[in-house]
Amino acid sequence: MKNDREGDHHDTLGAVGELDALKRIFPRLPSAAAELIGPGDDAAVLAAPDKRMVITTDMMIHGPDFRLAWSSPYDLGWKAAATNLSDVAAMGAVPTGLVVAIAAPNDTPVSSLEALADGLRESCEALAPGSGVIGGDLSVSTVLTIVVTAFGDLEGREPILRSGAKAGDVIAVSGTLGLAAEGLRLLFDEGVVDGEPDATAAAVVAARHPDAIAAQLRPAPPIADGKAASLAGATAMLDLSDGLAIDARRIATASGVGLDLSSEAVGGRVQLDGGEDHSLLATFPESVTLPAGFRAIGRVVVGKGLLVDGLAYNERGGWDPYAGWDGAAG
Amino acid sequence: MKNDREGDHHDTLGAVGELDALKRIFPRLPSAAAELIGPGDDAAVLAAPDKRMVITTDMMIHGPDFRLAWSSPYDLGWKAAATNLSDVAAMGAVPTGLVVAIAAPNDTPVSSLEALADGLRESCEALAPGSGVIGGDLSVSTVLTIVVTAFGDLEGREPILRSGAKAGDVIAVSGTLGLAAEGLRLLFDEGVVDGEPDATAAAVVAARHPDAIAAQLRPAPPIADGKAASLAGATAMLDLSDGLAIDARRIATASGVGLDLSSEAVGGRVQLDGGEDHSLLATFPESVTLPAGFRAIGRVVVGKGLLVDGLAYNERGGWDPYAGWDGAAG
Repeated sequence: MKNDREGDHHDTLGAVGELDALKRIFPRLPSAAAELIGPGDDAAVLAAPDKRMVITTDMMIHGPDFRLAWSSPYDLGWKAAATNLSDVAAMGAVPTGLVVAIAAPNDTPVSSLEALADGLRESCEALAPGSGVIGGDLSVSTVLTIVVTAFGDLEGREPILRSGAKAGDVIAVSGTLGLAAEGLRLLFDEGVVDGEPDATAAAVVAARHPDAIAAQLRPAPPIADGKAASLAGATAMLDLSDGLAIDARRIATASGVGLDLSSEAVGGRVQLDGGEDHSLLATFPESVTLPAGFRAIGRVVVGKGLLVDGLAYNERGGWDPYAGWDGAAG
Repeated sequence: MKNDREGDHHDTLGAVGELDALKRIFPRLPSAAAELIGPGDDAAVLAAPDKRMVITTDMMIHGPDFRLAWSSPYDLGWKAAATNLSDVAAMGAVPTGLVVAIAAPNDTPVSSLEALADGLRESCEALAPGSGVIGGDLSVSTVLTIVVTAFGDLEGREPILRSGAKAGDVIAVSGTLGLAAEGLRLLFDEGVVDGEPDATAAAVVAARHPDAIAAQLRPAPPIADGKAASLAGATAMLDLSDGLAIDARRIATASGVGLDLSSEAVGGRVQLDGGEDHSLLATFPESVTLPAGFRAIGRVVVGKGLLVDGLAYNERGGWDPYAGWDGAAG
């Protein structure tokens, strides 16, 4: 978020202050249909007609989670909303609201925060119509940090946990497998100059591989399919954030079963190990007609852990923010 | 959060990784009576028997919001919970749950995160029994960042907003005025060596002025008095975070009235301008017997803005995180 107009600091966060920055950001944020009291008081009030509220939170930190040379402020707003909406959907709930806490460097142009708000709005509108931002906090930090907490309505249904898969169930996925990881690999391979993330190089690779780069920078997870899976009788479900192999093992462990994937249906290694798809992985009783959007990729079996074509699959794969972070590369 | 055992990096966040760190932190967190589904799935589920949920979020950033030489990890956990619980109380609600997102440097000892969890737990237990942590996120950043989102139950009552004060109402406060600011002044005056925050100097000043330092580092806002004020018929209420003068003006503006404070009841300038008390400022109809904990400090009048002893008070005072931050001092 560099200031394009060198020397003109009049519209930076530090110059205009928190309150005036908020005044410019608020009108760009999406409003939530379930909002009873919005921003401006000590707290917001959100409708919870079901008498329960689904709640999830996720941080995005400059360095381990994104590079400003690759992600525009708009992209960051879009992704911060999308990844949290997906965690709500993975419970079988319908997203209703978000609160957004942002800490940004003093020299951040307010226009960058406006673009971030635009990304939040268009993500909510495209992926979970009716959801919106009901509150937040804005502060200063040398490290750009975006924290979204998202809320959802179960509409009277039971939440779909990781622990309900049963031997004989069909394993199915809605959304892409490995595409976001392919986008990240392309950025690391071709979006750098002298080992540093580079905006021009990233633009070139984005023009060549628009789907993969979009999947990484502006993911469009199938939010509505979370409710559809719940209505169809899904026995377990989660959001694919760390990769199919790691996340399928989580269902296996929580449910006390084995998950046997078909290599033909899955594809290859990048589909199995690539993270950040934010697709929905679910299990359904064999008798169920899979809801539109889902495709079968395997079968739940008696046993434990992950199998591929009936053989135990023990590769690790996956993403730990500490292991994966190179603090030097910005 | 320096590592005491130089060279022993086995128990830092970077060495043990996110998942193992979480395994050590989770058992120390308070559980919430209203928790239906806790940490470990894509999202948590919190009971909302009232069909509405009060929601607030607040960030604490190393530098603008705290100094590690002055605040222990325990203090940070305590204060992060307390300040958010207070925003819930200021709506007249009872706090039920928190989600906590923490980003910490790679070399942070896991024991520091355990101490932070202890602070969160003891703060919830002391200030809002029954409330607890239902979920969160842990990530890595060069800047220690703590983001709490807190939830509350209105128990069938209407939320107490800033906009309901009426001419003739009594203005009352529950909690300290200016004590947290006095603590911060003492730390800046006497808790530094060569202009840098210093732990030993801070310990000396804390021993001399335990109440003021505790008010700053481990505030104990009167959480239960929020519900009591609501039951008694409060017409407006807020959490005193930026100082009595600034926050009283907020009620005046939102309600379209004047707030006339008694200088004798308030005390002096530090009581009027000092921030971070997290006391509750409320207005009540004249006919109401003030709930225990509240004391009268003035009267709502026809007019606008803030008055003291009947005269307009236009001093600014207060706290803007951008204006107040010296990035060099750690």
